Formats: sequence, structure tokens, C-alpha cells
Amino acid sequence: MPSSDSPRTQVTRLAEKQRHDRRALDQLLDSSRVCHVAVVVDGAPVVLPTAFARDGDTLLIHGSTGSPWMRTVAEGGPVSVAVTALDGIVVARSAFESSLRYRSAVLFGAATPVPDDRQGAALDLLTEALVPGRAAEVRPSTRRELAATMVLALPIRRWSLKVSDGWPDDETVDVAGPAWAGVVPLREVAGEPQPAPDLRDGIPVPPSVIRVSER
Amino acid sequence: MPSSDSPRTQVTRLAEKQRHDRRALDQLLDSSRVCHVAVVVDGAPVVLPTAFARDGDTLLIHGSTGSPWMRTVAEGGPVSVAVTALDGIVVARSAFESSLRYRSAVLFGAATPVPDDRQGAALDLLTEALVPGRAAEVRPSTRRELAATMVLALPIRRWSLKVSDGWPDDETVDVAGPAWAGVVPLREVAGEPQPAPDLRDGIPVPPSVIRVSER
Repeated sequence: MPSSDSPRTQVTRLAEKQRHDRRALDQLLDSSRVCHVAVVVDGAPVVLPTAFARDGDTLLIHGSTGSPWMRTVAEGGPVSVAVTALDGIVVARSAFESSLRYRSAVLFGAATPVPDDRQGAALDLLTEALVPGRAAEVRPSTRRELAATMVLALPIRRWSLKVSDGWPDDETVDVAGPAWAGVVPLREVAGEPQPAPDLRDGIPVPPSVIRVSER
Repeated sequence: MPSSDSPRTQVTRLAEKQRHDRRALDQLLDSSRVCHVAVVVDGAPVVLPTAFARDGDTLLIHGSTGSPWMRTVAEGGPVSVAVTALDGIVVARSAFESSLRYRSAVLFGAATPVPDDRQGAALDLLTEALVPGRAAEVRPSTRRELAATMVLALPIRRWSLKVSDGWPDDETVDVAGPAWAGVVPLREVAGEPQPAPDLRDGIPVPPSVIRVSER
């Protein structure tokens, strides 16, 4: 599915950075843990970070049914969702050309509550997005837990993807000068799993946690 | 300066996570490279990531004077800015209690252009936020570069800070069960500096880049 042509989703500058590859979008969404969701409240924007998961052509977020924020998003007003990965610092020979390597997706649309009969599956996807394989290792959610949780779905329909993965683009005169130029790669790493203070003796670190710690 | 009491900046749930410590806010802002800025365009929210710097009680962002996005922000309408650090995955004994460790700041206000006579200093701060010490290593910006760049300032006045740094909070029955619980720490690391393909021979990696790579 191509990205929309609506003005709001067009990258107007640095057009060479815009991508229309849905697989590249999915790759970014599937490798990210947090998105930033913006809504309009009383005419002003409010942006908050939240965990998310992708379910095919849908982006899922969840929260407490008691959260005014979730209820605002659930009302179906326009939302904008950013998913950003920072891949490096582009150290140019001038401040002007210095920048970042990144992948940046922005989605637009309206979110709707996931129906009760699909809520369990959606929550499993949200668990799997944090720790792949974990959903099968924990007990099923209780009815009380499901009733306390709201899951919202945003169609992945109108979106924009920008990828900056290049090198410093310095002026010829600067390239001939004395300054260094290059890229400092950045990435997120997971550390050793730390057992909870109340973990009972003899419970080993499960496979899902070992895998996520080695990523 | 305490955070505002306006409804929009109050954490309504998980109030124990809310912090009113301005130093904790500054620490998060000063250790982050990217913020997410939301504005309202034609009644709908638009959120985009961008690099930023803190200048005392002001948050600075910059972009091209040719960017419609920057011009929208510069119009002085309400903006919301999120700065988020992801510190770990809270692996609970149930999906319901599983969550993230994070520090999350959200600022509200209106941005205004930085006056011409303070633009150079503001751009130095933005360079320093990416690579501390770099501003002194590169040539000054040219008049043409300054003219092509817009720097915007948002007062750090209305803000909310949430910190989640705890352990899984499982039900007693789950703590007595067979499931593991703990935290997988997450952090951003920098890799070895990679020289640009057009870097001339004999130019060493500068101290600023060595330092940022070792963080």
C-alpha cells in the first residue's frame, strides 16, 4: 500500500529522504518499542509516548480504561503517531551540515477500540512486541484484567516514512579543510536480565528474556 | 520552577510516577538527542521528531527556513513536546503487569523565533547537544547558512515528568507461581566512529567524537 498523497504526509524538504516502501515501514514499526501519539485537546496538541504493536495493517496501543488520555484517543478524533529510530550522529565538517541518521515514520488517522472478542489476541501482540515469545510463557489475562484494559487500533493507511542513512554532505571547500567528518553509529542495546527482588529461588530466566537480552 | 497545575500537565493515573523535580527534568532533557514536537494543522495533530537543545529555561529546535513544518511551529500556535528515554523492559509474571522503565517529559507552550543576534549561540548549543565539544572544532557558520536556518525557542514553563523505574508489581498469587520476573535494562550506545568516504588522509578523529563514541 503506497503512502497517501495528502499534503500532511508529504515530505516537502529533503525529498530524497522520503520512502514509499511499505516493507521498510513495517520493519521500523516491528523493531520499535515506543511510539509518540499526538491528539488535539481543547484546540491544543498533546503528545505522549506509549508502547505499541503492529497487527498487519493496524497499529495497536493499550492503556487503562480509567485513563482520560486513552479515552480521548478512543473518541475517534484525528491522531498522529510518530515512530522514530535514531541510527547515528552525522558529524560533518561544519555545524550546518551536521545531523542525524534516523528512520522516522509518521501515521495519521483515527483510533477505534478493539472489540472485546479480539482484545486478548491484541494484548498478546502487545506483549510480544516488548518481549517476543513472552505471551506463551505467562498465564492468560483474567477477566478483571481485560476489563481494566482498553486496546485501540489505528489503521496503517496514511503514513510518511523518512530515512536518513547517508554521510556528511560538506561543501568542497570544507572537504579540502582540516576538519574530520564521519558518522557515530547509535543503537539500543539490552543488558543482562535483572531478577525482581521478590523472585523466588530456583526460577530460571526464561528463553524469551534471554533472547531479548541478546539483541 | 514547579510544573504547572493545569489539567493538561497532570498525570491522572499512576500518580506515584509523577515528579516535580526540575533537576530531574533537566537531566532528561540534557541527556536526550531527539524530541517529538506536536502541532495542530487544520484541526488535526501532526507530530514530528527533531533534534533539540536546552538553554537554561528554554528548549531550542532548528530547521530550514524553507520548511513548512518549521514555519507552522514558528507561528506561535500551541505546541506539545515530548522527550522520552527508554530505560528497560519490566518483565512481570503476567502480561497485565508487564511494562517499561522510562523517563518521559512533556512540555506545553508556544515557540518563537530566536532573534538574529542570538542565533549563532543557539546553533552552537544545538551542535553541542549532538556532540559536546564539537562547536569549538568546526568553522563558524557562514552568513548564508545562518540565513537558511530558523531557530525556535519554547519556554520550559508548563511541563510534566513521569519516571517509571520500579520492579514488576505482581499479585501475590503470581509471585507464588512458576513465572520469572525482572527487568531487562535498555540503553543507547554509540559505536566506533566511521570516517566519511571523502575524508582526506591523515585527519584524526577529534576529541569530541572520541568522547561521544565512548558514552
